[in-house]
Amino acid sequence: MKQKPGAMAEKSRRRRKKKNLLGNHQRCWVWGRNVVLSTLEAANWPVIELQLSDRLDEQDLDFARQLADETETPVSIESPERLKSLCHTNEHQGYLARMSAFPYAEMDEILSSAEKPTSLILLDRIQDPFNFGAIVRSAVALGVDGVVIAEKQQTEVTSQVVRSSAGMINFVPIARIADLVALTENLQGEGTHVLAAVEDANIALHDYDMTQDTAVVIGSEGAGIRNDLLAVCDAFVGIPQVQDVGPLNAAVAAGIVCYEINRQRLVQKFQPPVR
Amino acid sequence: MKQKPGAMAEKSRRRRKKKNLLGNHQRCWVWGRNVVLSTLEAANWPVIELQLSDRLDEQDLDFARQLADETETPVSIESPERLKSLCHTNEHQGYLARMSAFPYAEMDEILSSAEKPTSLILLDRIQDPFNFGAIVRSAVALGVDGVVIAEKQQTEVTSQVVRSSAGMINFVPIARIADLVALTENLQGEGTHVLAAVEDANIALHDYDMTQDTAVVIGSEGAGIRNDLLAVCDAFVGIPQVQDVGPLNAAVAAGIVCYEINRQRLVQKFQPPVR
Repeated sequence: MKQKPGAMAEKSRRRRKKKNLLGNHQRCWVWGRNVVLSTLEAANWPVIELQLSDRLDEQDLDFARQLADETETPVSIESPERLKSLCHTNEHQGYLARMSAFPYAEMDEILSSAEKPTSLILLDRIQDPFNFGAIVRSAVALGVDGVVIAEKQQTEVTSQVVRSSAGMINFVPIARIADLVALTENLQGEGTHVLAAVEDANIALHDYDMTQDTAVVIGSEGAGIRNDLLAVCDAFVGIPQVQDVGPLNAAVAAGIVCYEINRQRLVQKFQPPVR
Repeated sequence: MKQKPGAMAEKSRRRRKKKNLLGNHQRCWVWGRNVVLSTLEAANWPVIELQLSDRLDEQDLDFARQLADETETPVSIESPERLKSLCHTNEHQGYLARMSAFPYAEMDEILSSAEKPTSLILLDRIQDPFNFGAIVRSAVALGVDGVVIAEKQQTEVTSQVVRSSAGMINFVPIARIADLVALTENLQGEGTHVLAAVEDANIALHDYDMTQDTAVVIGSEGAGIRNDLLAVCDAFVGIPQVQDVGPLNAAVAAGIVCYEINRQRLVQKFQPPVR
């Protein structure tokens, strides 16, 4: 166990104080009990306004109000129909939050707070919000230190991404970087192995030693990883397939990569090499 | 490599001849170039009628007509608007197939055609068609011999499942069984280890020897695996998590299970134990 979400929430709370709360030009709604409450609790992504259903019982209302108080978030009580009209779905469960712009992390911040050996997932043009959310969910559960996305041709953090992450978007730092090629070269300069997860790999994922500082690039489902980014990666690693039927779903592939990084580090930790 | 899709298509073609083509009470549409063509090519799931857009070029029309001829499938040429009105989406790419009931496989058939050691994925109440489809896609790529679903509280093979499987639904046998508990006991009687993939596991997935005949049960996202099914499993295996934040997405968890089964078998095959 590296950290419980509680510990990360405390760190997020401190980080938030440094954030500029102005310039919230990209707003979205976040809804559903667990997602809204965990977002308030993490206190990383500022909520502009919390709207609660008048059908919630007093205990639930009090709990949500208390979390809102801690982050000085305004609360209003509305009808379920009003909540539905705002988020266009019945799935709000009585909880709806109007969000400010997502607080992307700085790379320095991610690397300085990560424990060694570090692990990063770099996303090259993932456009499906369900996949992006599921990748974030896997990254948190399997101990990835940070997720990096490109600025162009990549879905940003949207309501769908938050839903698909099951609220986990609040528990791993996400950086948004203009140039993944330059980032890769910088990471390599600091000793991180940057691997491309591809179908035509020259080494199986489980045969590459990922117990050292590692970043893995996951490409878009349609187009894979851009050539200029491929060109600077240290190795091409592949998930061995029994039937060669094209790529796996991007979220599944990323989950397998996160699993394998963690598996190798657990094996190293608990099973010293045979003499 | 166990088999290329071509070899499996040949086997499917033979299997189809034995199928009863009557009783097609559950029909669905399948669309998109790759999905429709691979369904015709596999010749396992009978197409009632193929509809092609009049905007396709002659070469594409000829290729599709030829595949349709091989399975005696009627073809009609329609406007793109007509195709859209039938499948309610613009994503048809000029290819639309009206499908008969999905030809579920028999367990005996799956087990008799599988190579040893066998691997099966048992799905307990997966209700999200995207997850079901993604699981099928992983199962094909990573060499699972069969996918088994329960008859109740489980999404059947729908248009969405086919789309999400990227057409792979045609390349792994899928059985639909009334009683997964009885199936588990039968499999155990024949020497198959039946494992439950759960959060509160007593052994890490990578520490359980899955190089023997193995079946793994994946539970629904909301409710997990039913208690009566859990009670008969040989062991509870878990994907080790670094942050304890609830279950992974079901499709990601299933993908990791398929990856780990294949990884262990590859390691056994290529790396004899150290003396």
